Amino acid sequence: MKILAVESSATSASVAVTEDGKIVSEVYVSTGLTHSQTLLPMVSSCLETAKLNLDDMDAIAVAKGPGSFTGIRIGIAAVKGLTFSGKECCAVSTLEGMAYNFLGGSCIACCVMDARCSQVYMALFDCGEKIVRLCEDMAVMLSELPEIIEKIKKDIKKDVILLGDGAELCYNYLKTVYNNISLAPPLSRFQRASGVALAAQNGAGELMPPEALLPVYLRVPQAERELKKRRAEQ
Amino acid sequence: MKILAVESSATSASVAVTEDGKIVSEVYVSTGLTHSQTLLPMVSSCLETAKLNLDDMDAIAVAKGPGSFTGIRIGIAAVKGLTFSGKECCAVSTLEGMAYNFLGGSCIACCVMDARCSQVYMALFDCGEKIVRLCEDMAVMLSELPEIIEKIKKDIKKDVILLGDGAELCYNYLKTVYNNISLAPPLSRFQRASGVALAAQNGAGELMPPEALLPVYLRVPQAERELKKRRAEQ
Repeated sequence: MKILAVESSATSASVAVTEDGKIVSEVYVSTGLTHSQTLLPMVSSCLETAKLNLDDMDAIAVAKGPGSFTGIRIGIAAVKGLTFSGKECCAVSTLEGMAYNFLGGSCIACCVMDARCSQVYMALFDCGEKIVRLCEDMAVMLSELPEIIEKIKKDIKKDVILLGDGAELCYNYLKTVYNNISLAPPLSRFQRASGVALAAQNGAGELMPPEALLPVYLRVPQAERELKKRRAEQ
Repeated sequence: MKILAVESSATSASVAVTEDGKIVSEVYVSTGLTHSQTLLPMVSSCLETAKLNLDDMDAIAVAKGPGSFTGIRIGIAAVKGLTFSGKECCAVSTLEGMAYNFLGGSCIACCVMDARCSQVYMALFDCGEKIVRLCEDMAVMLSELPEIIEKIKKDIKKDVILLGDGAELCYNYLKTVYNNISLAPPLSRFQRASGVALAAQNGAGELMPPEALLPVYLRVPQAERELKKRRAEQ
């Protein structure tokens, strides 16, 4: 099964082509340029490097969120375009995609993204020969994190590894509470399209037609929150 | 400091651009096509994605070996060409480049590449905030490995993680001897140009003019070994 995957939920963006769970090609960029400029040229370049066409793909996977609202919207919009002719989309949680960096390892992946305002988006995964989701994606207060981790990991005797752009923030908060917690090394700490593709390959995504594909923010966007606040004040 | 790095010591090949230790862009391919066809187009594509030119680079780093003899020769030849106009090359050990996958982690990286004939190319690195080389790159018999690891790691109380295309082979051999040994997860197990660039950025490579750049095989190539054998038999 050939999968094209798109990841644009953070400052960096990446595109990968996998075949039966092996990476055929991957293009990654972190230049600060907006994904609307970089993403589609990266899709072309990734397919060209793999010597494959869009028509060769069995599915197109995308990180559906949580993450940067603008980044996710651009990724979703690009994949809606790429699948317009009738291909199936596969929507993968950004947090679950990054847990696949540790597929074949042995740890509890605590995937955390900085949601600002002392909040993080988080989910826990039991990583081994398979990635087993231990809880839904959530937006939680940083202060609630120790209790949540403890409650969810229960008696799984594996070390907790922090991934994502909120990993360092959470590590500084949690290291006083836990002994068996560590930061994933930077080269495997962040989301990559290859992780999204592996998640899709392993059935962790939701297959759907392009018109059903929607971003998952987990929180109301800031603009809407402010509008609501202004209206309440009127 | 901007570095362009080239990794072609295995079936896969990759090119990365980093700036002050951060990945700006990376292109990876594993199609089975020969690196002589894929490598230079990947350099163009990686620079284009980063919106940079060859002239913007401060150094060009390359995995000098050990590894596939043909792969290394192609990488070295390409970098000699790219630096012909007077840029400095940085030759990085393939094994040391892959240890940088665990920069910022906490483990002993045992980097091993299958050298066939029951041999492996190997080296050990102490991974933390810095990568500290614990021994020279060596070609050793698989059966010597436990004793070598024990002798070199001495009293460093970190788990041993196996990396490289020889990792699985060595894991099956070593798991009966060691408790604290594990396989790196596939997505961070193999060499990548980003690791070569990080190694160069951290002073682990050797700076030299292009004419001094030479592949490091650690063993006599099979063709030469066979020629020697045939001559001895005459």
